[in-house]
Amino acid sequence: MNKNGILVVVSGFSGVGKGTLMKRLTEKYRQYALSVSATTRAPREGEEDGREYFFKSREEFERMIRENRLIEYASYCGNYYGTPREYVEEQMAKGRDVILEIEAQGAYKVKQQYPDTLLLFVMPPDAKTLVERLSGRGTESQEVIESRLTRALEESQMAEKYEYMVINEDLEEGVEKIRSLIEAQRDKIGRNLAFVQEIRTQLETLLKKGE
Amino acid sequence: MNKNGILVVVSGFSGVGKGTLMKRLTEKYRQYALSVSATTRAPREGEEDGREYFFKSREEFERMIRENRLIEYASYCGNYYGTPREYVEEQMAKGRDVILEIEAQGAYKVKQQYPDTLLLFVMPPDAKTLVERLSGRGTESQEVIESRLTRALEESQMAEKYEYMVINEDLEEGVEKIRSLIEAQRDKIGRNLAFVQEIRTQLETLLKKGE
Repeated sequence: MNKNGILVVVSGFSGVGKGTLMKRLTEKYRQYALSVSATTRAPREGEEDGREYFFKSREEFERMIRENRLIEYASYCGNYYGTPREYVEEQMAKGRDVILEIEAQGAYKVKQQYPDTLLLFVMPPDAKTLVERLSGRGTESQEVIESRLTRALEESQMAEKYEYMVINEDLEEGVEKIRSLIEAQRDKIGRNLAFVQEIRTQLETLLKKGE
Repeated sequence: MNKNGILVVVSGFSGVGKGTLMKRLTEKYRQYALSVSATTRAPREGEEDGREYFFKSREEFERMIRENRLIEYASYCGNYYGTPREYVEEQMAKGRDVILEIEAQGAYKVKQQYPDTLLLFVMPPDAKTLVERLSGRGTESQEVIESRLTRALEESQMAEKYEYMVINEDLEEGVEKIRSLIEAQRDKIGRNLAFVQEIRTQLETLLKKGE
């Protein structure tokens, strides 16, 4: 059996509730490790290095890029954001499943490098719910909400390239759904070729004995 | 949401316990319909037309082939065996998931015609268990057991082309595993493109209102 962990990318529109889903999932099931991104943006009040982000200087981040120590990275509002390779590979080698909460562009880059990656896209039950959640935060102006919806419209094009869709209507249901999609991934034939080979060897041995 | 049922092919070595798994699965979860094959072989004591098989004359069967009314068929020990298309499509249209218990050659033909088909391969926990189950039937000679093992060795090559593997160690666990693999299939993006499109339309409408 393949004891390596599974790599999972979770994407979805801003406001769809990915963060809450991931928090609950990783609290409920400790075998899932949420990857921590590296960034060059300054830490905000209450943020801790290695918890919300690994905070890096521009020089450090660019060295990580050059040394291929990021699985994917992007530049956003003048700051870099990326996924450190070391943590992901360490956790997977230990048998933990690693979840990356990243955007579609990054998702494709991850899939190219780790073809067994499970790509999940979180959807709202409908667009109205998304608007309510964005407005419900209370912190966003009408303008910001509209720019988020425009972005969601763009991202919905990307959704089609994902493998599975999870509708985030009820938190616990969403968590269980994601869990069962990850568990199903463990049974992929491609992950179990060593087991198939082992059965074959056993059959050959039994047939030789029978001769 | 795509309300159509899912087509599932279940294959596995003779003696691996597919039949028992399928019986339990379809008894426990009534939304799964087990497809009944057509055959030209004579009914055995206690077999009923439409339950174990649809019993057909050679002429009837060959007409079904010509009229493309079989999804797949094969000839085995001088008799035809095949999967009638009508039952499968009717059940799927009603939203029931249809399970075909067929061999690898047939599995590929089904997948060609219905690309969303889920291909499952049932494996024994080890080769020794397979031999014990084959011997345990008590009805098989050593010779028959060996020919089954030789066939299993051939089929293990085919297993690699399946999508998922289910190890049949504990009946209830196996049933639940198959169930969760079928359920996961419902969340495939490809089955939910109409929903993604609906969200997009809703987003566009909301953005137009906001202007």
